[in-house]
Amino acid sequence: MIQSKNANTYWGFIKDPIYGYIRLTAVEKTIIDTLAVQRLRRIRQLAGAEYVYPAANHTRFEHVLGAMYLAGAVVDNLPIQLSEFEKQKVRLAALLHDVGHAPFSHLFEPLLLKYLNRNHEGMSTWIIAESNLADVIRKQGFDPSEISKLAVGESSDSEKRFLGQVISSSFDVDKMDFVVRDSYHTGAGYGSVDVFRLIYTMDVLDGNLAADITALPTLESLILARLESFRAIYFHRACRAVQMMLLKAIDYAKDDLSILKINKPDEYLEWDDYIVWSKLFENPKSREIIRDLSARKLLKCAYEKTFFVKDELASNVFTKDSVRQKLEEEIAHKAGVQVDEVSIDVPSLPSVPYHYAMEIGPIDIPIFSKTHSGEKIAQKITELSKVVDVLQVFMNIIRVYTSEQYREQVGKAATEVLGESPLSNALSY
Amino acid sequence: MIQSKNANTYWGFIKDPIYGYIRLTAVEKTIIDTLAVQRLRRIRQLAGAEYVYPAANHTRFEHVLGAMYLAGAVVDNLPIQLSEFEKQKVRLAALLHDVGHAPFSHLFEPLLLKYLNRNHEGMSTWIIAESNLADVIRKQGFDPSEISKLAVGESSDSEKRFLGQVISSSFDVDKMDFVVRDSYHTGAGYGSVDVFRLIYTMDVLDGNLAADITALPTLESLILARLESFRAIYFHRACRAVQMMLLKAIDYAKDDLSILKINKPDEYLEWDDYIVWSKLFENPKSREIIRDLSARKLLKCAYEKTFFVKDELASNVFTKDSVRQKLEEEIAHKAGVQVDEVSIDVPSLPSVPYHYAMEIGPIDIPIFSKTHSGEKIAQKITELSKVVDVLQVFMNIIRVYTSEQYREQVGKAATEVLGESPLSNALSY
Amino acid sequence: MIQSKNANTYWGFIKDPIYGYIRLTAVEKTIIDTLAVQRLRRIRQLAGAEYVYPAANHTRFEHVLGAMYLAGAVVDNLPIQLSEFEKQKVRLAALLHDVGHAPFSHLFEPLLLKYLNRNHEGMSTWIIAESNLADVIRKQGFDPSEISKLAVGESSDSEKRFLGQVISSSFDVDKMDFVVRDSYHTGAGYGSVDVFRLIYTMDVLDGNLAADITALPTLESLILARLESFRAIYFHRACRAVQMMLLKAIDYAKDDLSILKINKPDEYLEWDDYIVWSKLFENPKSREIIRDLSARKLLKCAYEKTFFVKDELASNVFTKDSVRQKLEEEIAHKAGVQVDEVSIDVPSLPSVPYHYAMEIGPIDIPIFSKTHSGEKIAQKITELSKVVDVLQVFMNIIRVYTSEQYREQVGKAATEVLGESPLSNALSY
Amino acid sequence: MIQSKNANTYWGFIKDPIYGYIRLTAVEKTIIDTLAVQRLRRIRQLAGAEYVYPAANHTRFEHVLGAMYLAGAVVDNLPIQLSEFEKQKVRLAALLHDVGHAPFSHLFEPLLLKYLNRNHEGMSTWIIAESNLADVIRKQGFDPSEISKLAVGESSDSEKRFLGQVISSSFDVDKMDFVVRDSYHTGAGYGSVDVFRLIYTMDVLDGNLAADITALPTLESLILARLESFRAIYFHRACRAVQMMLLKAIDYAKDDLSILKINKPDEYLEWDDYIVWSKLFENPKSREIIRDLSARKLLKCAYEKTFFVKDELASNVFTKDSVRQKLEEEIAHKAGVQVDEVSIDVPSLPSVPYHYAMEIGPIDIPIFSKTHSGEKIAQKITELSKVVDVLQVFMNIIRVYTSEQYREQVGKAATEVLGESPLSNALSY
Repeated sequence: MIQSKNANTYWGFIKDPIYGYIRLTAVEKTIIDTLAVQRLRRIRQLAGAEYVYPAANHTRFEHVLGAMYLAGAVVDNLPIQLSEFEKQKVRLAALLHDVGHAPFSHLFEPLLLKYLNRNHEGMSTWIIAESNLADVIRKQGFDPSEISKLAVGESSDSEKRFLGQVISSSFDVDKMDFVVRDSYHTGAGYGSVDVFRLIYTMDVLDGNLAADITALPTLESLILARLESFRAIYFHRACRAVQMMLLKAIDYAKDDLSILKINKPDEYLEWDDYIVWSKLFENPKSREIIRDLSARKLLKCAYEKTFFVKDELASNVFTKDSVRQKLEEEIAHKAGVQVDEVSIDVPSLPSVPYHYAMEIGPIDIPIFSKTHSGEKIAQKITELSKVVDVLQVFMNIIRVYTSEQYREQVGKAATEVLGESPLSNALSY
Repeated sequence: MIQSKNANTYWGFIKDPIYGYIRLTAVEKTIIDTLAVQRLRRIRQLAGAEYVYPAANHTRFEHVLGAMYLAGAVVDNLPIQLSEFEKQKVRLAALLHDVGHAPFSHLFEPLLLKYLNRNHEGMSTWIIAESNLADVIRKQGFDPSEISKLAVGESSDSEKRFLGQVISSSFDVDKMDFVVRDSYHTGAGYGSVDVFRLIYTMDVLDGNLAADITALPTLESLILARLESFRAIYFHRACRAVQMMLLKAIDYAKDDLSILKINKPDEYLEWDDYIVWSKLFENPKSREIIRDLSARKLLKCAYEKTFFVKDELASNVFTKDSVRQKLEEEIAHKAGVQVDEVSIDVPSLPSVPYHYAMEIGPIDIPIFSKTHSGEKIAQKITELSKVVDVLQVFMNIIRVYTSEQYREQVGKAATEVLGESPLSNALSY
Repeated sequence: MIQSKNANTYWGFIKDPIYGYIRLTAVEKTIIDTLAVQRLRRIRQLAGAEYVYPAANHTRFEHVLGAMYLAGAVVDNLPIQLSEFEKQKVRLAALLHDVGHAPFSHLFEPLLLKYLNRNHEGMSTWIIAESNLADVIRKQGFDPSEISKLAVGESSDSEKRFLGQVISSSFDVDKMDFVVRDSYHTGAGYGSVDVFRLIYTMDVLDGNLAADITALPTLESLILARLESFRAIYFHRACRAVQMMLLKAIDYAKDDLSILKINKPDEYLEWDDYIVWSKLFENPKSREIIRDLSARKLLKCAYEKTFFVKDELASNVFTKDSVRQKLEEEIAHKAGVQVDEVSIDVPSLPSVPYHYAMEIGPIDIPIFSKTHSGEKIAQKITELSKVVDVLQVFMNIIRVYTSEQYREQVGKAATEVLGESPLSNALSY
Repeated sequence: MIQSKNANTYWGFIKDPIYGYIRLTAVEKTIIDTLAVQRLRRIRQLAGAEYVYPAANHTRFEHVLGAMYLAGAVVDNLPIQLSEFEKQKVRLAALLHDVGHAPFSHLFEPLLLKYLNRNHEGMSTWIIAESNLADVIRKQGFDPSEISKLAVGESSDSEKRFLGQVISSSFDVDKMDFVVRDSYHTGAGYGSVDVFRLIYTMDVLDGNLAADITALPTLESLILARLESFRAIYFHRACRAVQMMLLKAIDYAKDDLSILKINKPDEYLEWDDYIVWSKLFENPKSREIIRDLSARKLLKCAYEKTFFVKDELASNVFTKDSVRQKLEEEIAHKAGVQVDEVSIDVPSLPSVPYHYAMEIGPIDIPIFSKTHSGEKIAQKITELSKVVDVLQVFMNIIRVYTSEQYREQVGKAATEVLGESPLSNALSY
């Protein structure tokens, strides 16, 4: 068995505005100082959000440090004996869980899928197991393949599934960190979730991570905070406009972007927000869009409709590029504008994706109550909490964007094609 | 018409840890420096909560300053022209809305009703309109009677009902301040509600205070924060135990407490937490309970059952002192303990009241959307928000308390008398 | 040797708004739930400050929990091996270091000295070693006498003087906690000192607690924050006015206050802010002052003079009650007012004491630099830091207080007697 | 006279994590949405600091919004009547004061001077008065030339010099904002300065901005916080290492960077951090350095010496490139390494500049005390405050950097050439 000598060697601190001092082991310091991790300094956590929240310039780098810190807090506080080696593995997995992110985070996701046949988690696994990073991990006494699986939530020890669930589950350290961190940097006024209440009451039930019922209010506010962040940040009209424009620019220039033709994970690591932005700025095909973004000339939302009930037809229609394209053409035609002046945005569409969207699905967090004798009885959170139950909502939005000058005619045309939208188009759950 | 010359004269600042600097007019400074307002320094905001949250020592005094500050923010930001005189009246009403509170805030409420035939709001009106404070108000150019009504939410101008609603309505400055302030001082980890988002989007619709639909997320988190505070603070078992013990002590000593026999509001103002606590400590009838409280020997909860559906029978039964007493006797008998070793606590019971309890009732906040032409269309919040809808829940808890040594037998007896309680007794909505 | 089985048994958490969750061992929980510790809930940290900072209602109770938490952080992070038993002793000492405080904290200090021949630290030692608390400590496996010494900074192990210095030294957990906590509750806008930077770099040099030179900026801001708090809080004119009024009331009523005649520490524990306030309110000798305080009718400062250089004569004069009294008489005579209308306040005077005052004396914190070979070389902080050097200032203030109506004439008379005061009477270092 | 109709038209809010909601007028919204201002989104406030403080990714964009907000707070609170038009001018000047910053903020400063003969303030003036931005300003009813001067602190009204001093003086809104903002984003644990205490007590004395003596503690903590930020951020060894590496890369590639050959201000606006970083990455001359930065392979400090007394010789020597170069050669030679492996860093050197460095010069803030009759008497801050006096310190640091593998030999050689450095090399004032 591979063993690390440095897992327990304390190296020093990093200062984080949220948790204060994050202690690093020598192993962690070594792995942090690799290109794979350092590159995350140049990948924004929330591409587009800075156009609405000027202070939201935080990067994946500080997020993964935060996730590692929380992962350490979870494994240190679980009432189960774990070796320092196991704990170090979990912290490393948290540290590395996002190394696969493409420039501008989720924005590239559909292109990764289309051209490289991997989502960002697949990319993470690939990089951890097969890039130069793998050697560094190995030298530190860890198995890159094991860490790469743990980083996407899979524990190599089937008795200890909770080790993976710390990284990826309904209430993992990834979500805990980003809810709190996004709120800190946007100033958006939700998200001061007391994550330590949750962490300090976690336990293991039949090999799975579980939460004590006394943490239920914290879970509820964590879930509500995540939903608020959808409305306030991810689905904000202007944030989406920025993302759509970036996507369009990438689409125009994609033949000249070698990131979509890479063969080895180390080639992928050459790419970050800075490089992509500059390439798009220099490329005549995409330059105009980047110029508009540079001066905040954004697409405007001319039409918006929200679905809270699964509209099967709509869903089917919108998952197909061809149908969407046809609708864009129809609206453009009716509005009397060029077809590339009309863009339909549907959060769950592959072409403008939002991986979070899928996560508002069923939540099944095992919650336990302790009897007087100390026995832990599992219960379903959705049975315990009406709030969680109602928040497990389906939601879909269709928006039609266009340039400022065509807003009115495109709005009208979209209404004819897509139907009346109710007066209130605020996102509500 | 009475007019004030000082309403717009700036006097200085008071430092508040939450809002920073609170500016005072000369009128406000004069009224703050009266016994009626200063007495609130010696009345805790959350009697009992400090036994669970050691830092929760905040008083009604800082709360009313905060409420006044927020009231000023509301009237300054409403898109409606108000005179400085009107604004000053609203700020004064907010400042004075709690002067009627008895020692230990809500704890005395049932005794006020029983012996003085007034709730705390009735006491506020009485004090503002008829105590020495009234003279001070009059000298500053305001009508004490008008202010006294405004302080409980009644505007003298029927066209401007919103002036009263700033002080008392579903989302008044009272609630906004206490949710944020309780969270700050308890550290309870909810309640970082972005109240200024709400304040900056408020408007007036048909004379009523209304909120723009863009503030819906803030309203949802305000409502959730309030509910969390019920679970985390007001209904916390240990907080309730402290309150029950204090109530019992007051009940034992009540014949010697002249507060229950007062004839004039100025007599009432002699009473505060310090005086009542000391009287109870000195009185042989109540001393033992106070000694127990002094050393944190609290009653223990032996049984707990939560109702989410209106149990009509239960309700009827528990509103009657006699029925409750009978149940206490029955449980004590079965448990083989003295009857005064058994105390039933029901939050909505007059004998252990919680005025907030009534407020988890129907919420009807007018929400408006603006059309493109600027027209404001009113909508119901419960139709817009599933979260608000589900949070409009009925909840009632029955708890049986006893001394530590009888916990088991009283728990058993209570189960026999009141029925099995489900395993999970956490409060959930 | 006495050994504790519970020192390492985790009991649960207490929520603190500053540090989040404070973990308690079973030993600590048991000792916290004694009258000696619980009584601190009813003793304000900053008596008088709430008249200037309405939110400054924090108590010694939350402060000692905070000090215990920080003490735990120090001993857990020192790069020296300590047993769980030793660590528990230090935490207990921090928890108990303030049990000797009289009502209204430092206010009673001169009376304690005069009538009971003990300062508050002497009272702490007495209570820990000889009250009922001692039995509880002993039952938990600790030696009350040892803890009582540690609580005032004396380590029983002369090789480990740092154990006592954690509790009492130039940068002990007491000061770290109150600087941060006073700032939090007053909102006074200084005091966000990064105490963990200091804690994480502490070490032991020749048996003494020492700080790494990299923490120098933190030490400087800690020292500056403390000085700011003198100006902004402790020496604030209105805070001092409140304290002087309380002292006067106590002086008038002292023959009826049995706290000054106690024989056993357990008698002392009967007294807290609530009881003293009520006694003073009921006593005809002191009632009027308490009525004035109740409605914030405060003494006004008619004259103020600050000394930055040791004025030996002044010092000598003011340490003698008789001289001060004579000056009061002279000023009163010249001003044509009753002698009890004139009160001289000198922070270092025994009759209006401020124990902190003595602490702005020489600071000698050993600071060390590490050589490349890891050797730690001790240096003097005052040689390293000009800021610390200049802040080691001597400062004394003389103020003359009187009622509002006599302010002018008393001010004039005081100037004649005590000399011109420079225009600027702001406190500056 | 040019007049603006929109100066008082409220447009909406921007959310800032520090001040909450920043209200914008229609004028401001229009000017914010220009390339000149939007470009600041892509210019880091603290280039290099993110390598030490991972969360320090804030940009000039959020800083100028903050400065505008504070400027509005100052002019709204000054006890002097100003027109809405005047207030709008001051806010615009604060908004635009940094538009001249080059990529990576201060890093480019010496190159701007050398090649374009302008410092960043000169660039700001140029851009405001002569770029496309000037037209936008003019259309909004303001005189670009007047605003351009105000943005660097020069008021067009000689009777109202304070209007310029709001933007540029010893305690201007620029410094107030960045001290607080840098602290927020680095988490560095100083900098929670209560700037509103200062703002609310500001006044005008003989046409100059002045502070009330009651704000002295705030001024002291503002000054200390700035100095801490030098030690903790700007002069941090690793931050400086990053800056030196970037500078070296720029120097290697400078012939290919057209930013240094621009003729019109609008050409300058094409350049930002993203573009420069990418150009350096693509340029074979600089690529290697950027690769090292990408993976955090930083230069190491082999030698450091701090001067607190003006070492005239040293100063003279180090301001001359040629002398510095010679020393580098000498050290390299003695160490037996290539000359480009040795880099001398002196904060005040033109080649590695820090414009802040000059600002630790004499501070002369007029402070006033009010007499009882209301007269304001000006005093010198350095006479009032020993803290400010001692902080007016001269400080200079010489450091020698090299690659990790040469650290020891270069350190030795540097000691031979530059003299023994005292053991303690922490920065202290």
